[in-house]
Amino acid sequence: MSLLVVGSIALDTVKTPFGERTDVLGGAACFFSVAASFFTPVRLLGVIGDDFPDRHVQLLRSRGIDLTGLERRVGGKTFRWSGSYEGRMDIATTRDVKLNVLGEFKPTVPAAYLDSEFVFLANTDPVTQSHVIRQVEGRRFAMLDTMNLWIDTKRDALLEALRLVDGVVMNDEEARSLGGSSNLIFAMNALSNMGARLLVVKKGEHGSVMLRNGEFFALPAYPLDGVVDPTGAGDTFAAGFVGHLASTQDLSWANLKRALAYGTVTASYTVEDFSLDRLLSIDRSDLDRRLNTFVSMTTW
Amino acid sequence: MSLLVVGSIALDTVKTPFGERTDVLGGAACFFSVAASFFTPVRLLGVIGDDFPDRHVQLLRSRGIDLTGLERRVGGKTFRWSGSYEGRMDIATTRDVKLNVLGEFKPTVPAAYLDSEFVFLANTDPVTQSHVIRQVEGRRFAMLDTMNLWIDTKRDALLEALRLVDGVVMNDEEARSLGGSSNLIFAMNALSNMGARLLVVKKGEHGSVMLRNGEFFALPAYPLDGVVDPTGAGDTFAAGFVGHLASTQDLSWANLKRALAYGTVTASYTVEDFSLDRLLSIDRSDLDRRLNTFVSMTTW
Repeated sequence: MSLLVVGSIALDTVKTPFGERTDVLGGAACFFSVAASFFTPVRLLGVIGDDFPDRHVQLLRSRGIDLTGLERRVGGKTFRWSGSYEGRMDIATTRDVKLNVLGEFKPTVPAAYLDSEFVFLANTDPVTQSHVIRQVEGRRFAMLDTMNLWIDTKRDALLEALRLVDGVVMNDEEARSLGGSSNLIFAMNALSNMGARLLVVKKGEHGSVMLRNGEFFALPAYPLDGVVDPTGAGDTFAAGFVGHLASTQDLSWANLKRALAYGTVTASYTVEDFSLDRLLSIDRSDLDRRLNTFVSMTTW
Repeated sequence: MSLLVVGSIALDTVKTPFGERTDVLGGAACFFSVAASFFTPVRLLGVIGDDFPDRHVQLLRSRGIDLTGLERRVGGKTFRWSGSYEGRMDIATTRDVKLNVLGEFKPTVPAAYLDSEFVFLANTDPVTQSHVIRQVEGRRFAMLDTMNLWIDTKRDALLEALRLVDGVVMNDEEARSLGGSSNLIFAMNALSNMGARLLVVKKGEHGSVMLRNGEFFALPAYPLDGVVDPTGAGDTFAAGFVGHLASTQDLSWANLKRALAYGTVTASYTVEDFSLDRLLSIDRSDLDRRLNTFVSMTTW
């Protein structure tokens, strides 16, 4: 089943204790679409500038990603993010952000995308997220991601978007902040009361917790002894989650649990190298093999 | 099967966002022995002073805990710890420590305890831990807990003790420190190479990870929306773990996984109130009921 993803496409400059990469392929929608393409056909809605290398476009196309909604703005420059990680690498330090063409990104969903049944609104301005989701009336399941910036500056718009969609994913600090409690479970219950029907909280190396209809489900992270670059972990976690749901078209609680495990193993590959390098070196059978290993590491 | 625990018995003064308690029952061996008494007969080896209230002794006795090894030192004062928790309550701030009679604690294992098959060496000086475990020659399974103080000041003695026992439990910061890596999984592999045959790492609200023979197993924490006082969480986690092993006498990997789950739910009760108050309000069927809930929250 087709999965529409809307969000940023970026050229990233990243420094970690394991090296540095300049202007590599990045952006939430980009990470998401490549990772989700292991599971289901993906449609990408995003904007790039003149400077976006053709080889990156070819790469996305080679993954079977529908690029009807990829707008190349003439005279514009691609969104750029520069950041670094140190020590435990659990927090990205942003060194520079240039929104460029992303600053005026107010997308119209192409006619060919309007029948998308699964939609992922990668982290963007919640006003834009609401604007997009209102255009895809027939969607069966829409999920959004967000970040502290919007919690701090556009809280009301974010709460409105949160009520429009079927699921919300964020990291634990964001959940504590928006939910208004230092206790994560208390904060998650609060977010549920604010209208989050399905809530998935990412905790990086500590795994994830999910809440729907008052029921909690939690998984640890996949144990990794070598994290090279955490960039894109959250986006590809969401891609494994929503990608599995879209491919199975099954929104049961049991299948949501399985989706969370797919999110976990998908993200575990992402962080093993810079940019999309590791994900591009594996195939679907690798994901399934690691999923089976993960079962034996977490089931008793 | 009898489970011997050696370690501190304390009078704690604790302040959390939910209140303050003065001179309540505490200490690692005390938390451990009460929690382990849900699972198996417990033998306590520890020292108290003149000032230790008789009602606390009666309480321990009422749990069926063998107090043959409880030494009341005339003219001495009981070990006291005073600490506080704020915000996320994941870190205790020690406000005051008075070792008192614990300062000269170099215990001789009573003859009646020498046939103990399971032994838990609660956090103490690793020299003392080695001294004790060498006396219990016939034990089938011994585990030790430790803390940053010994990692920083008695590293060699700690590594020696670690090689004498069958299992080691510590928190994640301690594992990263002793294992010499900011990556927990890397650090755990390093500890395994240093001689830790079974390694259990506690991560507080983020659950736990276990390693034996190169195999990892991880569990999230039990989701709690109201943590009142984290004191004793680690000790009662270890009690659920070792208590289940002692009661089943089964050291298989499958049973170690189940033991980790028992540790998780035992600790989850502890933190719901001050001191041992919550644990003393439940019975074994409550532990088993929460274990079943935990299964549905973590198994897919």
